[in-house]
Amino acid sequence: MAKILTGKEVIDSLNEELRERSKALEEGGVTPTLGIVRLGERPDDMAYERGALKRAENTGVSVQQFVFDQDMTQDELLDEIDKINNDDSIHGVLMFRPLPPQIDDETVRNALAPEKDVDGITDMSMAGVYAGSDTGFPPCTAEACIQILDYYDVDLKGKNVAVIGRSQVIGKPVAMMLIGKNATVTVCHTKTEDMADICHNKDIIIAAAGHQGTVTEDFLSPDQTVIDVAINFDDDGNMCGDVDFPAAENIVDAITPVPGGVGTVTTSMLMKHVIEAAEKANK
Amino acid sequence: MAKILTGKEVIDSLNEELRERSKALEEGGVTPTLGIVRLGERPDDMAYERGALKRAENTGVSVQQFVFDQDMTQDELLDEIDKINNDDSIHGVLMFRPLPPQIDDETVRNALAPEKDVDGITDMSMAGVYAGSDTGFPPCTAEACIQILDYYDVDLKGKNVAVIGRSQVIGKPVAMMLIGKNATVTVCHTKTEDMADICHNKDIIIAAAGHQGTVTEDFLSPDQTVIDVAINFDDDGNMCGDVDFPAAENIVDAITPVPGGVGTVTTSMLMKHVIEAAEKANK
Repeated sequence: MAKILTGKEVIDSLNEELRERSKALEEGGVTPTLGIVRLGERPDDMAYERGALKRAENTGVSVQQFVFDQDMTQDELLDEIDKINNDDSIHGVLMFRPLPPQIDDETVRNALAPEKDVDGITDMSMAGVYAGSDTGFPPCTAEACIQILDYYDVDLKGKNVAVIGRSQVIGKPVAMMLIGKNATVTVCHTKTEDMADICHNKDIIIAAAGHQGTVTEDFLSPDQTVIDVAINFDDDGNMCGDVDFPAAENIVDAITPVPGGVGTVTTSMLMKHVIEAAEKANK
Repeated sequence: MAKILTGKEVIDSLNEELRERSKALEEGGVTPTLGIVRLGERPDDMAYERGALKRAENTGVSVQQFVFDQDMTQDELLDEIDKINNDDSIHGVLMFRPLPPQIDDETVRNALAPEKDVDGITDMSMAGVYAGSDTGFPPCTAEACIQILDYYDVDLKGKNVAVIGRSQVIGKPVAMMLIGKNATVTVCHTKTEDMADICHNKDIIIAAAGHQGTVTEDFLSPDQTVIDVAINFDDDGNMCGDVDFPAAENIVDAITPVPGGVGTVTTSMLMKHVIEAAEKANK
């Protein structure tokens, strides 16, 4: 049976480290603070926000909520972002998207100061991931994959990795980060032919397609580590990933569960970035 | 014998198109203009500049040279870039690098306005390539590879491509552009194990390692298209690529020569970007 790479173990270890770093900041008179920008009351946003509030509390991060009417104009939102950019007491910003239709996504996300872009939504953060530099921050979910591999001592150097998915928030950044860690990376997507064949002989599979049943038995082989990034819901409304977990469990060496895997680590990455931003701002 | 994918054929076709677009701009009162920024008289820069001047003339692009002392300060250079950014008669800028040690590369290259960054050196251009958006311009050599594949009708959708090299100017951007064109892309580099094995069953190889002899007979198979991006010099001082050309010629379906392949197309890409920048600025 495969080893189950639970997120909880990663988080427990990480949160302890983060609490210490928060404490050190507090002792220097700095409270690491996350600003949450939300327009309206979308249930998905509210659920993620509740999780973030709890994780913030657990890691010594303070949260300031900026809740606006979903009918606000783009100029009003840009004014608010400008105020937040200039507020030294806020170190990082989580802004819920998609934004309502009267607001241009590209303009607004790039208005955020890269040094406060703890969720990796600005073009400058993208360029940072791409170049392997420390401009901005990588998207939290992409970094959560790396954090899990790191925590469980999965060696990346010279290893063959298939990344399934080419989105800006997961597929592309995780591929870039893996290349930076000396893995040989193949990016697969909806137009890939013989994907099972390509994945079958890889050491590691990062599944971020966002479709239940993407990774079937024929993708899998012993000695593989599988990171299932997706959050899908099956016909019965149960949360599931991209991978046929029952099949995988009997074949591969190690796999992250859904739920309880990558998703849970993502929120801790956000807190890690807030603390890093606070540390950088007060060096 | 392999079909030889000469750069000349690509350039001849492209230059004709570019001359027409330049002419249309001229008729609207706009002369597409490239600003060349050079510090000192480094022989490599001078050689590339001569090639650029000739290609500019052939494509109806005007060139304005900004030649400075190699001892100039960073502030002086930033002032000059600011002037160029604000000069509507200059549509694109080629700045020779590496810059002398008193000047911070990251600061200076990012001072350039992305809409004039025809050589793809700013972080905003990198983000544009990464996101597949039209912010800035891709690095000319990376785009030259795509232009050659396009000109010779090499289908990319669902094709398996190995990119050898992970630099900011070739490996990473060409991988991103290929993914955007629906290829399944594997990025190999110095830490890749069994590279020959990985490359042997690929449809297309983009060799951008920058080391003579990287791609040997065992990397190659019939039906492959090979794009050799590298410009190396052998022990006798002859220009050569990464690929064992005599071996490849007898095995693969098609290959670009060195010299006479990708390198020659790069300069035309630069002119294409200047013309595009002029068109965008005068829409």
